[in-house]
Amino acid sequence: MSEPLKSRYETPIPVGVSNRHVHLCQADWNFLFGEGIQPRKFRSVKQPGFWACYETVNLEGPKGKIENVRLIAPHRKKTQVEIAKTDASQLGLRPPVRGSGDLGGSSPIKITGPKGTLEVKEGLVIASRHIHFSPSEAEAMGIQEGEIVSVRAGIGGPRELVFTNVLCRISTDFSLEFHIDTDEANAAWVKTGDYVYIQK
Amino acid sequence: MSEPLKSRYETPIPVGVSNRHVHLCQADWNFLFGEGIQPRKFRSVKQPGFWACYETVNLEGPKGKIENVRLIAPHRKKTQVEIAKTDASQLGLRPPVRGSGDLGGSSPIKITGPKGTLEVKEGLVIASRHIHFSPSEAEAMGIQEGEIVSVRAGIGGPRELVFTNVLCRISTDFSLEFHIDTDEANAAWVKTGDYVYIQK
Repeated sequence: MSEPLKSRYETPIPVGVSNRHVHLCQADWNFLFGEGIQPRKFRSVKQPGFWACYETVNLEGPKGKIENVRLIAPHRKKTQVEIAKTDASQLGLRPPVRGSGDLGGSSPIKITGPKGTLEVKEGLVIASRHIHFSPSEAEAMGIQEGEIVSVRAGIGGPRELVFTNVLCRISTDFSLEFHIDTDEANAAWVKTGDYVYIQK
Repeated sequence: MSEPLKSRYETPIPVGVSNRHVHLCQADWNFLFGEGIQPRKFRSVKQPGFWACYETVNLEGPKGKIENVRLIAPHRKKTQVEIAKTDASQLGLRPPVRGSGDLGGSSPIKITGPKGTLEVKEGLVIASRHIHFSPSEAEAMGIQEGEIVSVRAGIGGPRELVFTNVLCRISTDFSLEFHIDTDEANAAWVKTGDYVYIQK
């Protein structure tokens, strides 16, 4: 007899905290780092096929600068800069909360690399929290693409809370992980690798 | 006939977001700013009798500095520095989450003012979220001192969430306000003056 599947409510979901980071398109990479240059792998990130680069850029807004913001490779079709609201306040910018790739009407941002400074017209966002599932993980937990769930985080800690309206995304490129930014992680007192649970 | 009281669940509670700030004891003030000098009022804060000062200090930890951190007056019996977890990461320090005044075993912190630098042995904390009530507000809402409630924040926004385990504190010195820090405010996408509700 096969072992019964764990329900969605009993499956521990690892947290992945996204620090501020930058995805460049090939043209913007060429402008900032030089044509023919390749990004160098610094370390893997949990989502298959993606990795953090040795290369970093500086971000600048009307109120301040943030230096040494890490690039994530491989390059994307459009440049996308993901920061926390705390970072946005420091820069003096008001980017919207958005899902990845949803950049229409997002904020402008100035990016500086070793070869120059780029004024991106739109591409600055604050990431919308979500859970990644592989198809088999989603099936085992009875999760549908686009489903909205609530997630209990920081259980037993000093700042336990429930994130409501969390989007579930399923792809063969994904592996089970609850993606939040540093503000959300700090508010719940959780870190990468901690476990959270879908709430009934 | 008197108007029926609103229940605790229907009463809008204004949010007060605490940015990083410092309460000094008189001796530490004297050391950093000089004996006989008085702090100057910059603006009132919502809790009766307290005000933000023109005077600021710099904080320093093993990994970095944060400049121009505002003082809150009047002075306290013990120096207490309240920062967000994001600030703590920048400083390279790991203060605990604590209620106000509960400083035993809290983190050391280096504070610089115009007259010198002070190495405080303990006093650095991350504030534990809580609701302040005046006695009449608590009575109208049926709240007991020390009661624990859940608070729904950011309703209708992009980051609605439920803060569980929120402590209720009642005092004649208090006025109705839900106190959170900048990480928590950014995680829920709320700001000072927004309203939250106690959840059933």
